[in-house]
Amino acid sequence: MSAILVGTPDKRLVVVTGRAYPEQAQATAGCLGTQLLDTTAYDFANGEMYVRFTRPVRGADAFVIQAHTDPINTWIMEQLLMVDALKRASARSITVVAPFLGYSRQDKKHQGREPITARLVFDLFHAAGADRIMTVDLHASQEQGFFDGPVDHLTAMPVLLDYVRGSMSLAEATVVSPDAGRIRVSEQWAAKLGGLPLAFIHKTRDTTRPNHAEAHGIIGDVEARDCIVVDDMIDTAGTICEAVRTLHDAGAKSVTLVATHGLLSGPAIERLASCGAREIVLMDTVPVPQEKRLPNMTVLSVAPLLAAGIRSVFESGSVSTLLDGLPSDIRPRNIYA
Amino acid sequence: MSAILVGTPDKRLVVVTGRAYPEQAQATAGCLGTQLLDTTAYDFANGEMYVRFTRPVRGADAFVIQAHTDPINTWIMEQLLMVDALKRASARSITVVAPFLGYSRQDKKHQGREPITARLVFDLFHAAGADRIMTVDLHASQEQGFFDGPVDHLTAMPVLLDYVRGSMSLAEATVVSPDAGRIRVSEQWAAKLGGLPLAFIHKTRDTTRPNHAEAHGIIGDVEARDCIVVDDMIDTAGTICEAVRTLHDAGAKSVTLVATHGLLSGPAIERLASCGAREIVLMDTVPVPQEKRLPNMTVLSVAPLLAAGIRSVFESGSVSTLLDGLPSDIRPRNIYA
Amino acid sequence: MSAILVGTPDKRLVVVTGRAYPEQAQATAGCLGTQLLDTTAYDFANGEMYVRFTRPVRGADAFVIQAHTDPINTWIMEQLLMVDALKRASARSITVVAPFLGYSRQDKKHQGREPITARLVFDLFHAAGADRIMTVDLHASQEQGFFDGPVDHLTAMPVLLDYVRGSMSLAEATVVSPDAGRIRVSEQWAAKLGGLPLAFIHKTRDTTRPNHAEAHGIIGDVEARDCIVVDDMIDTAGTICEAVRTLHDAGAKSVTLVATHGLLSGPAIERLASCGAREIVLMDTVPVPQEKRLPNMTVLSVAPLLAAGIRSVFESGSVSTLLDGLPSDIRPRNIYA
Amino acid sequence: MSAILVGTPDKRLVVVTGRAYPEQAQATAGCLGTQLLDTTAYDFANGEMYVRFTRPVRGADAFVIQAHTDPINTWIMEQLLMVDALKRASARSITVVAPFLGYSRQDKKHQGREPITARLVFDLFHAAGADRIMTVDLHASQEQGFFDGPVDHLTAMPVLLDYVRGSMSLAEATVVSPDAGRIRVSEQWAAKLGGLPLAFIHKTRDTTRPNHAEAHGIIGDVEARDCIVVDDMIDTAGTICEAVRTLHDAGAKSVTLVATHGLLSGPAIERLASCGAREIVLMDTVPVPQEKRLPNMTVLSVAPLLAAGIRSVFESGSVSTLLDGLPSDIRPRNIYA
Amino acid sequence: MSAILVGTPDKRLVVVTGRAYPEQAQATAGCLGTQLLDTTAYDFANGEMYVRFTRPVRGADAFVIQAHTDPINTWIMEQLLMVDALKRASARSITVVAPFLGYSRQDKKHQGREPITARLVFDLFHAAGADRIMTVDLHASQEQGFFDGPVDHLTAMPVLLDYVRGSMSLAEATVVSPDAGRIRVSEQWAAKLGGLPLAFIHKTRDTTRPNHAEAHGIIGDVEARDCIVVDDMIDTAGTICEAVRTLHDAGAKSVTLVATHGLLSGPAIERLASCGAREIVLMDTVPVPQEKRLPNMTVLSVAPLLAAGIRSVFESGSVSTLLDGLPSDIRPRNIYA
Amino acid sequence: MSAILVGTPDKRLVVVTGRAYPEQAQATAGCLGTQLLDTTAYDFANGEMYVRFTRPVRGADAFVIQAHTDPINTWIMEQLLMVDALKRASARSITVVAPFLGYSRQDKKHQGREPITARLVFDLFHAAGADRIMTVDLHASQEQGFFDGPVDHLTAMPVLLDYVRGSMSLAEATVVSPDAGRIRVSEQWAAKLGGLPLAFIHKTRDTTRPNHAEAHGIIGDVEARDCIVVDDMIDTAGTICEAVRTLHDAGAKSVTLVATHGLLSGPAIERLASCGAREIVLMDTVPVPQEKRLPNMTVLSVAPLLAAGIRSVFESGSVSTLLDGLPSDIRPRNIYA
Repeated sequence: MSAILVGTPDKRLVVVTGRAYPEQAQATAGCLGTQLLDTTAYDFANGEMYVRFTRPVRGADAFVIQAHTDPINTWIMEQLLMVDALKRASARSITVVAPFLGYSRQDKKHQGREPITARLVFDLFHAAGADRIMTVDLHASQEQGFFDGPVDHLTAMPVLLDYVRGSMSLAEATVVSPDAGRIRVSEQWAAKLGGLPLAFIHKTRDTTRPNHAEAHGIIGDVEARDCIVVDDMIDTAGTICEAVRTLHDAGAKSVTLVATHGLLSGPAIERLASCGAREIVLMDTVPVPQEKRLPNMTVLSVAPLLAAGIRSVFESGSVSTLLDGLPSDIRPRNIYA
Repeated sequence: MSAILVGTPDKRLVVVTGRAYPEQAQATAGCLGTQLLDTTAYDFANGEMYVRFTRPVRGADAFVIQAHTDPINTWIMEQLLMVDALKRASARSITVVAPFLGYSRQDKKHQGREPITARLVFDLFHAAGADRIMTVDLHASQEQGFFDGPVDHLTAMPVLLDYVRGSMSLAEATVVSPDAGRIRVSEQWAAKLGGLPLAFIHKTRDTTRPNHAEAHGIIGDVEARDCIVVDDMIDTAGTICEAVRTLHDAGAKSVTLVATHGLLSGPAIERLASCGAREIVLMDTVPVPQEKRLPNMTVLSVAPLLAAGIRSVFESGSVSTLLDGLPSDIRPRNIYA
Repeated sequence: MSAILVGTPDKRLVVVTGRAYPEQAQATAGCLGTQLLDTTAYDFANGEMYVRFTRPVRGADAFVIQAHTDPINTWIMEQLLMVDALKRASARSITVVAPFLGYSRQDKKHQGREPITARLVFDLFHAAGADRIMTVDLHASQEQGFFDGPVDHLTAMPVLLDYVRGSMSLAEATVVSPDAGRIRVSEQWAAKLGGLPLAFIHKTRDTTRPNHAEAHGIIGDVEARDCIVVDDMIDTAGTICEAVRTLHDAGAKSVTLVATHGLLSGPAIERLASCGAREIVLMDTVPVPQEKRLPNMTVLSVAPLLAAGIRSVFESGSVSTLLDGLPSDIRPRNIYA
Repeated sequence: MSAILVGTPDKRLVVVTGRAYPEQAQATAGCLGTQLLDTTAYDFANGEMYVRFTRPVRGADAFVIQAHTDPINTWIMEQLLMVDALKRASARSITVVAPFLGYSRQDKKHQGREPITARLVFDLFHAAGADRIMTVDLHASQEQGFFDGPVDHLTAMPVLLDYVRGSMSLAEATVVSPDAGRIRVSEQWAAKLGGLPLAFIHKTRDTTRPNHAEAHGIIGDVEARDCIVVDDMIDTAGTICEAVRTLHDAGAKSVTLVATHGLLSGPAIERLASCGAREIVLMDTVPVPQEKRLPNMTVLSVAPLLAAGIRSVFESGSVSTLLDGLPSDIRPRNIYA
Repeated sequence: MSAILVGTPDKRLVVVTGRAYPEQAQATAGCLGTQLLDTTAYDFANGEMYVRFTRPVRGADAFVIQAHTDPINTWIMEQLLMVDALKRASARSITVVAPFLGYSRQDKKHQGREPITARLVFDLFHAAGADRIMTVDLHASQEQGFFDGPVDHLTAMPVLLDYVRGSMSLAEATVVSPDAGRIRVSEQWAAKLGGLPLAFIHKTRDTTRPNHAEAHGIIGDVEARDCIVVDDMIDTAGTICEAVRTLHDAGAKSVTLVATHGLLSGPAIERLASCGAREIVLMDTVPVPQEKRLPNMTVLSVAPLLAAGIRSVFESGSVSTLLDGLPSDIRPRNIYA
Repeated sequence: MSAILVGTPDKRLVVVTGRAYPEQAQATAGCLGTQLLDTTAYDFANGEMYVRFTRPVRGADAFVIQAHTDPINTWIMEQLLMVDALKRASARSITVVAPFLGYSRQDKKHQGREPITARLVFDLFHAAGADRIMTVDLHASQEQGFFDGPVDHLTAMPVLLDYVRGSMSLAEATVVSPDAGRIRVSEQWAAKLGGLPLAFIHKTRDTTRPNHAEAHGIIGDVEARDCIVVDDMIDTAGTICEAVRTLHDAGAKSVTLVATHGLLSGPAIERLASCGAREIVLMDTVPVPQEKRLPNMTVLSVAPLLAAGIRSVFESGSVSTLLDGLPSDIRPRNIYA
């Protein structure tokens, strides 16, 4: 893919990344027809980090890509250091690109005396000097309002929809929300896939214990249906694998899992391997290492989406048009394959 | 009810209100065993407003109560003027009390180039000098994160639950969410009422046209059930009245409507009067004038809840304990009756 | 008039307006040889507003024109929404254009525990994201210092002077200040009109009652003179009509009223119709609807002045040169006639 | 005079001063029944200054008194250093007390590309850490709005009125404004002195040349009257001495000059000595050294007024009541006499 | 040791800690005669953290203690979460207590395009809501100026001096700086120990490679002397162990190493064990686990120092008096022994 | 020297200066091939200052050069006024150029209740509206972290090194630090001059008395050596002249003094004239008037260095490359000679 960046003597694009998932940033730069700016980054013996850009950034529009993957606090901190260095080196504008934004699930207080860590993360990037945040499929869209400035909230939905349309028959399909909080998104999926029926799993989540939820039953009809379970992320996969079993118990013909963020923490792979899902479709907003890639798992590259977003920002185009799909010269594909 | 405020020579409570709904503020002050501070407020001929406190506020912990009712922009602006006046008059702390927070539905961008007006409203109060926001049942809990400081997010749920438990048999009741976005709250209701069954109305909302939604069908079982439809607010009542009809068409035995904010705009009363609901239960977070009070409508006072919240703030108690109900010395009742 | 805007690939001018007085914004855009950007704006049933720009504004220098007319709080709020939307849509710079700035009379505390609402209004626009304020003839020039950034303080004086010079004989004219606070401006008028004599009406204003003032007498000589009474605004017209009567009682030959802002609230038209003034000359910084246009009233368009100001800002020219008159390619005229 | 300060274990008053006019601060502390906190302050050889408080200020409510007298930039800077030191030493609140606020005349832009230095001075104190500003008779009341927080704007008018009432007969007195910009204040004086007649000197001020103005004539009747010329400050005394001569030329019986701030710069004393004024009445908001004290000059102490203001702030009383006169236990007198 | 905290109904002390080194915080609370507030903290499966205070903090003066030890980015982040939670739970004041402040060595740019990470860390705590920072022996004292508010910069020097005086003869002692940047501190040690001679190791540090330095030689006389090598921290111990060898090569009789922060990263213990130092004296500002405690290593508790600092802040006493030693009722000792 | 500024229609360079040392700014502008923008600046009679730019600055990148020389507080204040005027006149960016930054020695608290005046100065420029600070050889490099934005920290070391290399034989030279705090810089000099030996003067500074220090002795070997004493500034010259005597007493062959900032306050010239130094080499970061120029004193112009820095900023080049010397088209020379 070739770059179609409109530059002027006064405008320069700089794309940098930390050490969390450099392949993702390289692929994004590749989609833009450019290269990552050389960056030095290492750890001191006590765990403190050092970063430095080896070529000038003065006056540039800088995009700092980092995947918020494990060790997540370290990578967030490294990205903060990069923003500070760009600010002090007189970059003209600084955009934090966090395809999966860490802590975005902690978006409100469930009980007294909790932090709202998602807001905190936005505040930290603001304090370091970020002018803008670009991210994909926040846990709650309201988090756009956590930043005092522009947030480019991209969605992987067109990429995922495109894949689903091309990989299975939708004649007997039903969209299933694994959770009361996700029904609105499921409604959008059902509509975009031509008005499919909808169902949801009804359960209560116990907020005092992490990664734990208890399923109760299905509301809606799933018998003999090809179920498409849509979620924003798969973390330990407990909830979603229980959903698969519940759906099979209720007579579902097949179950396909679709999510933007494949965190795949702890027992996730073991659970997914044995849950009986037909296929698992994810974006690589965080790295999915080879050993976690199950035979029935498809991992789509987020790079074209990020590239399209960055290009729109740099050329002052519209990001919201990306809601309908990527531009024709930047198409989703499995870049690393 | 008597006041149990712990004061010291250094601490003084001041409660003021604008002109939107003074009865609400008076009732709240009454619950606290105190009185509103005298305030002058009037309009100039061109619509500009004037406010002034007629007695000192220097050093006081001030609470500014205003109902965000029609004309809503005027009352928000008046509250901003009051905050500015308190700041310049050296109040020690300023808490904005907005039982219904205007614009809280505009909490994210649905399309490009929209404002996030809910965040803007928090920003405006912050700019005017507010240290803290107290409000009831925000449209999305995430909005707590829109303020760079403490937000006391009260919920009317204990008060409403209390009323519902005392006013109808729950033996054959089902909790119904009128909307995909409200199912999580409905789940909480179902759990608090002893594990009632759950259903929801499945529809799509067209974001380009105001106050408009199109219902599709029911997911879950409602036949011969006493349905309790729970929502955060009733505005034009279009959605919820369509829900009532849909439920009756599906064989529901009765339908009770429960909501925190009774905005009751435009055709709401006409619709509610003819929709066939058994009872409509609301809080008076905005005024419900006598002519809008249908025979089968119950309006509960929000004053005890606000009073409990203010007392907790002033005495440095815990607001989150209010989630389980009001303190024994501040009980909900229909104060204006 | 043709546009002489110097653009570059990197620079784009966007002019938008709210719903207060779209004709004014259209005329301004017309003077600039451009068009208003399409904007969606409407009210929800409970009075909350919605705005959205239908075409991209990313990277643009945006000017948001709104007349602060009745319902003034609503229109200020709508303008704030527009600024927030522009900020979140990544406009490069945002200039609030408020030809008459609402609340500019409340520019200081007359008594304890009042707000300084004029400062508050500047703070609100700053909080929403405005980079710059453009306005005409503030009630007090000191208000330029209320904003932490550039304020383009235009004056309609050259336009009004031009009209007065062309519409009456100045041989026996005297400039009269209707109020002690306006004498400095009257001095400027007297000087600019060739050193005319000066007089002023001496009265006390009762700050505790709105729109009320009590006249006492004339200081200076007005007998057999053609009096030109100059004020920044005519609101209810009480003061200025009393001035006309006082002047006639003192033997004035004729009285001409000149003001920048014709708010014309409440009883203004009735008073002006019967006060005996020879002519009333106003700018249309707020709309003067057809039914308020008396036969002896002249309403000059503010659009050329705003256009000249916007052009200077956009092309990085000097706004202060406008103090001596509009540039030759943008002339004042009665555009809507 | 004894102190009537209400203290608690949690509340401690600290009054400090720089080196500009320590007698003023000592007198103020004396009126409060307390003493200045010991402070070290000296100059380094290159003109940099050093300040340090020799006893703890942690948790205290600190008032930093400094007279903005010549060398004015040095004393403003010294006050900024003191504020910074208090902030870093954890004072609970910091009030800047500047009886005459330097640069308050530069309160707006007369031409393009000027600073608004009065606003800048407020900004500098804010940046250093000041929570509140206390000052006397600002050049324009609007400057209260230059600070994003409380400004205690005291007026010396009650003190000066009191003196004038006791020192001359008002039977044939007329209040005269030396300048169009001061007429509103003169109106207040005329009213407070029982409805005296009013006159003003009409002139044009040339803004491009400092300390220069050109008088034209008198509007109003002054023949055989005892004229009281009221101004906010006497700087080089050019304008006001010309006013005295103009009044005498017009047949005035006597001329008394009254002003809050006696800057008495450059040729002021020579001019005042020879202008023919009956008496000159000033406050000592800046020091009036012995050699400048003419036989017919009365200098009243500002200390009781500052003390009353500080006491109100510290005890959370109302400052605005001071508009009607000082409290009975703090009376104006010529303290240093 | 008993608590001597002066409390009032209005004042409440809360001490909390994260999971980095709870024993340190417990010991500090113990010195204050109080207990840590119960806190819930755990990791989610993907590495995100959760914290919550289980009892109210509203209105309290909160101190958040965290040791910045490995994994240092995680513990800094956890402390940020705690600050955010305290802010949103309405703590009256929030003090970050970081006995060793992570990243304090990155206090300036050595080359272009580096961050100033020490400043960034202060900025992050400020953004989260910290009002004040308390820390011990910053790498450079100038870093106090990195925070826009009070920094309580404690020094362990009195505690360390006390120990050294009691544990060795100083008759033939020389203070040695291991590095050009530390000579000023060595001068203070030499003076405090009664005017001991001084020497320093002269070397160049290669800033492009971490934890690496190259020694050159000794300036000053060390033959047959008991050398006391003083540094702010021992990280990988490369520099300091080379110093020991260099000193022994130059004929030193014995070498004692003293440092505030014993980071002891990577090869540090191996190096220290074999370097030939007589004794190694450290504070436990970060944990020194049992397996790292060499037989000739003494680890002094920092808890009494922190307790003295916290007490001074809470009771509004003077922290700077701690420069001369701890108060008699809080004495340094080896608490965990 | 000719200008090699890359301009675009959108980019305009403006260089202005105050009245402290206009020759320096003119020389800098000359090196850039441009001229200073005309500026009006004068004092009012009471010491207040006035500034105004006589030509437009809207949209320009403005550099405000001022030497912080005596009267230092006045010149800092004048520079603040210029920044405020540029901000309000809509300059696109504002860089404060302070070749010697006043108060940079007060960079930390030595005792409780001191200000950190260096940080305060950065804060004041930030409050006035500065986007960036450019300065030369700060007293401590850490001060770069005092500004929340880019600081271009230039060093005169290449210019000074160049001169020293060309003006004396280094065969028997030793670099001497006059002070423990300057050894690190001396190490850099020794390395850059080809690995010269190093020595330092050991003394204690009494922080409670200004401009006073007490020398003790030399650490390192200086007998029969050509000593080069390197310091950041020469203020009263007490320390450095004592160093010269101490070195001569220890048998030094010659002593050359090199410093960036020649403040030369109070007795400095008398001391330098009689101290016996071979040569004194300074930059003119503050003016060195003709009467202070001793026969053995060389004053190098800082203008080429400032010009190189400004050009890099304006053209978005790298400032850090200046660490290795000036660009070939801007060479240091004695411009005013």
